[in-house]
Amino acid sequence: MRQCTPLPYAAAVRPRNDTLLRALLRQPTPYTPIWLMRQAGRYLPEYNATRSRAGSFLALAKSPDFATEVTLQPIERYPLDAAILFSDILTVPDAMGLGLFFSDGEGPRFERPVRSEADVAKLAAPDPELSLTYVLDAVRQIRRALDGRLPLIGFAGSPFTLACYMVEGGSTDDFRTVKTMLYARPDLLHRILQVNAEAVADYLNAQIAAGVDAVMIFDTWGGVLADGAFQRFSLAYLRQVIDRLLRTRDGERIPSIVFAKGGGLWLEELADLGSDALGLDWTVSLAKARARVGRRCALQGNMDPMALFGGEVAICAEVRRLLDDFGPPQRPDGGWDGHVFNLGHGLSPFTPPEAISVLVHAVHSYSRQLRALAS
Amino acid sequence: MRQCTPLPYAAAVRPRNDTLLRALLRQPTPYTPIWLMRQAGRYLPEYNATRSRAGSFLALAKSPDFATEVTLQPIERYPLDAAILFSDILTVPDAMGLGLFFSDGEGPRFERPVRSEADVAKLAAPDPELSLTYVLDAVRQIRRALDGRLPLIGFAGSPFTLACYMVEGGSTDDFRTVKTMLYARPDLLHRILQVNAEAVADYLNAQIAAGVDAVMIFDTWGGVLADGAFQRFSLAYLRQVIDRLLRTRDGERIPSIVFAKGGGLWLEELADLGSDALGLDWTVSLAKARARVGRRCALQGNMDPMALFGGEVAICAEVRRLLDDFGPPQRPDGGWDGHVFNLGHGLSPFTPPEAISVLVHAVHSYSRQLRALAS
Repeated sequence: MRQCTPLPYAAAVRPRNDTLLRALLRQPTPYTPIWLMRQAGRYLPEYNATRSRAGSFLALAKSPDFATEVTLQPIERYPLDAAILFSDILTVPDAMGLGLFFSDGEGPRFERPVRSEADVAKLAAPDPELSLTYVLDAVRQIRRALDGRLPLIGFAGSPFTLACYMVEGGSTDDFRTVKTMLYARPDLLHRILQVNAEAVADYLNAQIAAGVDAVMIFDTWGGVLADGAFQRFSLAYLRQVIDRLLRTRDGERIPSIVFAKGGGLWLEELADLGSDALGLDWTVSLAKARARVGRRCALQGNMDPMALFGGEVAICAEVRRLLDDFGPPQRPDGGWDGHVFNLGHGLSPFTPPEAISVLVHAVHSYSRQLRALAS
Repeated sequence: MRQCTPLPYAAAVRPRNDTLLRALLRQPTPYTPIWLMRQAGRYLPEYNATRSRAGSFLALAKSPDFATEVTLQPIERYPLDAAILFSDILTVPDAMGLGLFFSDGEGPRFERPVRSEADVAKLAAPDPELSLTYVLDAVRQIRRALDGRLPLIGFAGSPFTLACYMVEGGSTDDFRTVKTMLYARPDLLHRILQVNAEAVADYLNAQIAAGVDAVMIFDTWGGVLADGAFQRFSLAYLRQVIDRLLRTRDGERIPSIVFAKGGGLWLEELADLGSDALGLDWTVSLAKARARVGRRCALQGNMDPMALFGGEVAICAEVRRLLDDFGPPQRPDGGWDGHVFNLGHGLSPFTPPEAISVLVHAVHSYSRQLRALAS
């Protein structure tokens, strides 16, 4: 059928709403696109209903049917500008054989944490086509269901963030086990990070091949490292991942986003990674971040998720404050800087669903107004 | 007796080891002084013994005898350059009548958190001479026990950090209750912060009158705020406290230190507060912080407390890295910048006590070497 469609190939594969992709690539957009970290999740009654049917979080995440269902839920309810694959960053170490499970009230845990020299020696990057098939099937199924309507974002945890869970064996508030390894046996941690970098790159490339339109790397825990250690143990391995990423599929650019929570002091170094966009948490001023790195990367963020508890007036005020802080994306010289609206962290499960309607509408309408004023 | 002692008054009241005070005031020192946040605490077997005798943490903190005993323990064991009052930042809201208690495994809690308009209306700054007598008695007793050997540091929580506990009613991982108030009812939070600023200033001034040689304000939680909110809800009230502080006692300067954990992006604004020194967490490069604000404030910090789990070689390497990063305190123009070695956060209860011996020795000896090399 291709010879019957005179559209260039690129236009044929781009989603109809490509505002997100354009903003990530610092191209002109009629308004500021918005999506939200954890937009598919426990604050939505329809998510909780699906999760009940699935039986558990892991059953949900491991079923392409259920994952597709919950990925689509927020975009059915709100005019968001992207869907993001429903999954968990810990699927990768699970595929390495660490035995992911969820214990009540304690979050994710691993049956076999990686602590000793022998544990580390056994680690290998999994082949995502073999051991993460359920994720790639979900990507293919979601893409079919989206039918070109919106871009689909794929994601993975950063090598260091995955290592935190792999070494700690679960959540932690002081990162004592992984940091003890970092200071006492840096060679072991480097070996884990090397395997993780390979695994994350392979996994993201498999997601790209399966159909995601953009990829995001979550460095949730790099910000707990000391200056110096961050560069050696997180940034260096983010670079390896970015360097190995497929940057295009069928001639179409696949933008990448790096989000290092708590990384505001290291923006210049993060911008040097060569990803298309940087995610920002709420401690960073968008104006200052734009001045520091906005000519090299698009910026994504950065409302405090807790502002969604302030009611309609507070949400609208916060949206205006953030969009004003970034300023008109078109620069005085005519070029464009990129801004994708998001939170500075995942949505709280306690968020009132109606707050998201207010937020999305405010971002779309106020950013259109600002462009009209600036032109 | 004063006419019999020909020493100038200032020299008579200064502790014999005044290295800490000199570094805080950016005066020449023969080596880099060191003290450690939570240097009196659960990692020390002698502390645990005293705590057992006291029966509970609160009984320990509220007894001047026990508080004196545990304050002196780390300076008996290690050649530290300061003692810090053993107490808790939550004594202030406790004195406001909120009912501080400690529940097993959940940390500090308040019986009567401050949530409603009526709760807020009832708040008033306590008179420390009446309701925090036990702290001031401890200060006087510790000072007598120190007998001019070392400076004694007093401290308080910042207005915002206290408000977090007062509104949440205890520890939290998302600050949802206090941030909901911030976004939905900022007027209520401002009223709490106003009372807290007055209470903290009065409390620190009472500690100064009772004999502490320096004061530190812990803004442990300001760093969880969004840029913009930090300035309005934490920084503005830190400024009120600093502005109300007694800066001298009997003609002797009493240096102040502000520690805003996670505040590395706001160093310039923190330096504008007019405190003598800024505490830094480990995410900040000492060299970069010195370049940004070192001509206006001394810097205190900033080793990751988890580096103390890395063994002797790693501890010494980390000390050298940090002292090299700050560089020789004497500038090429002959003036001095100030550096006080510390951790970037409190000591972990799991720290091996022998690690502190290694640390203190490394800081003293390597900083002396660096000064010899630079001169």
